[in-house]
Amino acid sequence: MSSAPFRQVTIVGLGLLGGSIGHAVQARLPDTVVVGYDADPAVRGQARDLGLAHRIADHAEECAAGSDLVIFCVPVGAMEAAARAIAPGLSPDALVSDVGSSKATVAAALAQALPGHHVIPAHPVAGTERSGPDAGFAALFHNRWCIVTPPADADPLLLQRLVAFWEALGARVETMDADHHDKVLAVTSHLPHLIAYTIVGTASDLEQVTQSEVIKYSAGGFRDFTRIAASDPTMWRDVFLSNREAVLEMLQRFTEDLTELQKAIRKGDGETLFDHFTHTRAIRRSIIEMGQDDARPDFGRSDHSGKG
Amino acid sequence: MSSAPFRQVTIVGLGLLGGSIGHAVQARLPDTVVVGYDADPAVRGQARDLGLAHRIADHAEECAAGSDLVIFCVPVGAMEAAARAIAPGLSPDALVSDVGSSKATVAAALAQALPGHHVIPAHPVAGTERSGPDAGFAALFHNRWCIVTPPADADPLLLQRLVAFWEALGARVETMDADHHDKVLAVTSHLPHLIAYTIVGTASDLEQVTQSEVIKYSAGGFRDFTRIAASDPTMWRDVFLSNREAVLEMLQRFTEDLTELQKAIRKGDGETLFDHFTHTRAIRRSIIEMGQDDARPDFGRSDHSGKG
Repeated sequence: MSSAPFRQVTIVGLGLLGGSIGHAVQARLPDTVVVGYDADPAVRGQARDLGLAHRIADHAEECAAGSDLVIFCVPVGAMEAAARAIAPGLSPDALVSDVGSSKATVAAALAQALPGHHVIPAHPVAGTERSGPDAGFAALFHNRWCIVTPPADADPLLLQRLVAFWEALGARVETMDADHHDKVLAVTSHLPHLIAYTIVGTASDLEQVTQSEVIKYSAGGFRDFTRIAASDPTMWRDVFLSNREAVLEMLQRFTEDLTELQKAIRKGDGETLFDHFTHTRAIRRSIIEMGQDDARPDFGRSDHSGKG
Repeated sequence: MSSAPFRQVTIVGLGLLGGSIGHAVQARLPDTVVVGYDADPAVRGQARDLGLAHRIADHAEECAAGSDLVIFCVPVGAMEAAARAIAPGLSPDALVSDVGSSKATVAAALAQALPGHHVIPAHPVAGTERSGPDAGFAALFHNRWCIVTPPADADPLLLQRLVAFWEALGARVETMDADHHDKVLAVTSHLPHLIAYTIVGTASDLEQVTQSEVIKYSAGGFRDFTRIAASDPTMWRDVFLSNREAVLEMLQRFTEDLTELQKAIRKGDGETLFDHFTHTRAIRRSIIEMGQDDARPDFGRSDHSGKG
């Protein structure tokens, strides 16, 4: 059967996300041809060895030839240059999309680099702390949300096919305005990463407590933060720079709330602390009920598997 | 053989930690008798059903009778009252210890409540986000650190037996000064919990982003914070109040570092962000090498077990 939403997909950028899409399309959409491209020749070599695509193109200008979907999986700040590089081979009918973590700036960059082309940005809310082509795996999008942010004049049929594509990869799809996406992700993803990067930096730069003590006793809570603070630095630099306004706004709220708890600690106000800490438990429960996290204690980390 | 470090252990407070000690002693030290006590009759009933101890005492004043080790596993703020309640049955030769997350205040509280008794506080750096007697399990301490903070005049033989006890439960033991413990834990545990509680509160109280959106898209990073923000509110209120100075000092450092990154975002200074984000990756690697976390991506959460 040939009910696949796209005949041929070109993936530009073969890191964790691009590589996972390559695996997932081959596993879930066997009728779709997958072409991969990466600006780094070493990555292209790895991608060939890993079988991330049916074919790895060696030149940007020919990688999009014959594809009816082109997905950019490069850091947000590199989208525009990547789009310009592949433009010569891009068919006028092809749909252009991406997986960037901020959407308003990416939408503008792609529209500017590819005038007259169909552009519908998207963001699969999925990832791990690992990066590079060998970090990808087919199940990455399974049961995760993918947010599609169609511009007002998006072609409805192409939108429908993009939704079908992500659903075929196991994702649940939601559409929203790019600006709203950027606010939502500022709080659910960008602020948490910024906080995690900060605290890990703070902890590694103290005089009274050594770095080896921090590492040794990290099971007290600190280690949960180190996972996301190990994410790709280039990707995250670009996210903060491209979603600056929303991130700074959320950071302002966070700082106000932190100041309030700080004051409660200083004043010995146990009631304020208790009330706040009780409130936050309910959120955790909802996340588990929604299937967005593991219900087992400690995320089901392996050293607790011997429970009993 | 009767080489067990203690003949009979009384556990006061049968939540996650007390319950886990009960399971662990029965599994690892079969010659040691375990007596349990909890001020809450409902918890005592549950503890009996769960078999957390050989015997559950119904009265505080008799629970310590005949035990050569008494461990307090109650919130830090409840230690002194719990110690006074069990004092009538406590043998003068018995060792008194605890599992509290802050040590200087606990040491003072226990010494004051039990004058003339042997007190050596301890803190197993282990736990999950769950609480209550049914959350306990024997493997909780396996391969985790237990920090023992002996006062200057501690009996060396009793100290040696307490170390042997924790090692028998699978922990690796380190000794240090109570004040130093409190600084180390302020950064590896208390500050992370405070930050996590704060950000989860911030995210649930926004006008432009709904709570259901926060929950839905939490896989972008936010969900990692919700785990520790689901920890027991009473326990954590007491930790912040009892380790106030060290927590406020670490919070001050954190805020300075956050302000620096905020400024970099505002100014569009990508280099500062990139350098900071690169530095923090190394910490994660060390934690994994030390065996203090799971090396699999995403902590090996179950929905990624289908990797491939």
